[in-house]
Amino acid sequence: MKMLINVAETVVADALRGFASAHPELTVDVEHRVIVRRGAPYEGKVGLVSGGGSGHEPLHGGFVGRGMLDAACPGEVFTSPVPDQMVRAAAAVDSGAGVLFVVKNYTGDVLNFDMAAELAEDEGVQIAKVLVNDDVAVTDSLYTAGRRGTGATLFVEKIAGAAAEEGAPLDRVASIARQVNENSRSFGVALSACSTPAKGSPTFDLPGGELELGVGIHGEPGRERRPMMTSGEIADAAVDAVATDLNPDGPVIALVNGMGATPLLELYGFNAEVQRALTERQIPVLRTLVGNYVTSLDMAGCSVTICQVDEDLLRLWDAPVATPALRWGC
Amino acid sequence: MKMLINVAETVVADALRGFASAHPELTVDVEHRVIVRRGAPYEGKVGLVSGGGSGHEPLHGGFVGRGMLDAACPGEVFTSPVPDQMVRAAAAVDSGAGVLFVVKNYTGDVLNFDMAAELAEDEGVQIAKVLVNDDVAVTDSLYTAGRRGTGATLFVEKIAGAAAEEGAPLDRVASIARQVNENSRSFGVALSACSTPAKGSPTFDLPGGELELGVGIHGEPGRERRPMMTSGEIADAAVDAVATDLNPDGPVIALVNGMGATPLLELYGFNAEVQRALTERQIPVLRTLVGNYVTSLDMAGCSVTICQVDEDLLRLWDAPVATPALRWGC
Repeated sequence: MKMLINVAETVVADALRGFASAHPELTVDVEHRVIVRRGAPYEGKVGLVSGGGSGHEPLHGGFVGRGMLDAACPGEVFTSPVPDQMVRAAAAVDSGAGVLFVVKNYTGDVLNFDMAAELAEDEGVQIAKVLVNDDVAVTDSLYTAGRRGTGATLFVEKIAGAAAEEGAPLDRVASIARQVNENSRSFGVALSACSTPAKGSPTFDLPGGELELGVGIHGEPGRERRPMMTSGEIADAAVDAVATDLNPDGPVIALVNGMGATPLLELYGFNAEVQRALTERQIPVLRTLVGNYVTSLDMAGCSVTICQVDEDLLRLWDAPVATPALRWGC
Repeated sequence: MKMLINVAETVVADALRGFASAHPELTVDVEHRVIVRRGAPYEGKVGLVSGGGSGHEPLHGGFVGRGMLDAACPGEVFTSPVPDQMVRAAAAVDSGAGVLFVVKNYTGDVLNFDMAAELAEDEGVQIAKVLVNDDVAVTDSLYTAGRRGTGATLFVEKIAGAAAEEGAPLDRVASIARQVNENSRSFGVALSACSTPAKGSPTFDLPGGELELGVGIHGEPGRERRPMMTSGEIADAAVDAVATDLNPDGPVIALVNGMGATPLLELYGFNAEVQRALTERQIPVLRTLVGNYVTSLDMAGCSVTICQVDEDLLRLWDAPVATPALRWGC
């Protein structure tokens, strides 16, 4: 597999250096692998910290900025960051109002954020945590006990980030984050496997003419292999999966996400089918985001995330945000 | 090649429907294939219209909005839009102050925009044109007499768009657009070929372990095939090509662009090498944009574009912009 890299060992450090020069509005500690919103900590404001394995960009570093994350900790590719990164991030963004850790449900991330929470609290930082586990495809997976955390992470970080920006206290920011997670469901589909720099070849074997329904963002197995389907059939399968599980009784916001290598032209076409499938199931869609936001390196494919929103969650979604990858209203 | 589509024949129409539902802030005429900024025409404002073959998203539809394009006309995949689309777009955005056509230098686009200019002028719309031809890799190519137009299109649309937003008259907007094009150079590299929906298989043959230096955004041949190179070597080759040709005597802004299937993690790492290569050549970089902006469907690879800027061009680059794919300051 050809890659635009020097050597596998320096991929994350190289990316952080390149990220730093493209985004002088953020503070990037390349050595310790922490990306911090410039000016943090903001007085009286709850800090939001997330992180996870690299390879899912723009998640999480691309979501640092006004109205979203205060800091992000990138791990090695598909590998949890270490507690030291999270503790540094928490210290850098805590104004005394406390810090919310946004944790995707993978065993390594959960353990490391738990340890970091203890260490940070020992240093006097009040910590709350939200576990994101929105992927309905499977319970228990290669790296997860319970459901995996995927696309809803963006909704949690954006909406809880807006609440923190407004000055909500830690318990309120945390309860909004949990509410967003509880209201969200995701389902992913792979048309091709991804290749990590360390392995240099596809992480799983997906025969020509087949797709994987319910794939995880590291290429973890999904629900089933099927002969290739049309965009409309894939949309029906994904929307069925999330709508059946969430069973929303009100409107939703939707993320139609690319896994990394699927052209935007195809993603927009897929969105037309997702909107049709949601409309047929009488699920009103108030906002839709289409693009590559929670990726799996060079995997071709897509995922659908819906989040049921009330007026308050919608207002927080619409609130100004200024990050490298998500930006509106300011 | 597996694709997230229904059938090849409806790919562009499907994408436009999906684009419309994701971007209610724009007016999308799916039947006639014109994307227009809502509220256009704006009184006294010069209109900016661009367009080209689909498959390069977010170019051009993703650049419609405040401070950039007033309208975009998507053609079939890798095929020029037709004059009727351009005439409709011009009529939709002309306030009486005239319209600038931003035309990438491909034979079909040039002919069709020329014909559209005549037709629009017959209808009383004053038209100016700028031809974008920034790609230094080759002169004359599969679809082009002279140099191809690639990454500089983004710079032209952004900077001339800002001038139009400020109320500059048509001749001034056109001369700024031409200045940006003259100050810009691009060079692209393919690690893999792209596959069009109609063909369903790679448009050219790139053996494993080789890359194509100087590739065009439709997979047109470049300067040479080489055994796979490191990110640093590729950055040196691309920066050498653009810097030698432009020979800037002042600072530049840079676009480090993904062709579509290269992970953002790799693009950021590549940016670190591009910055190093520019610094070694004593070329100061004032702003850098990293991401998938001028793509070639599912091609893996990258391109580098630099544009020498003076204070006025930099101010226009920094001016507020609010489009689906480029947004800051508002």
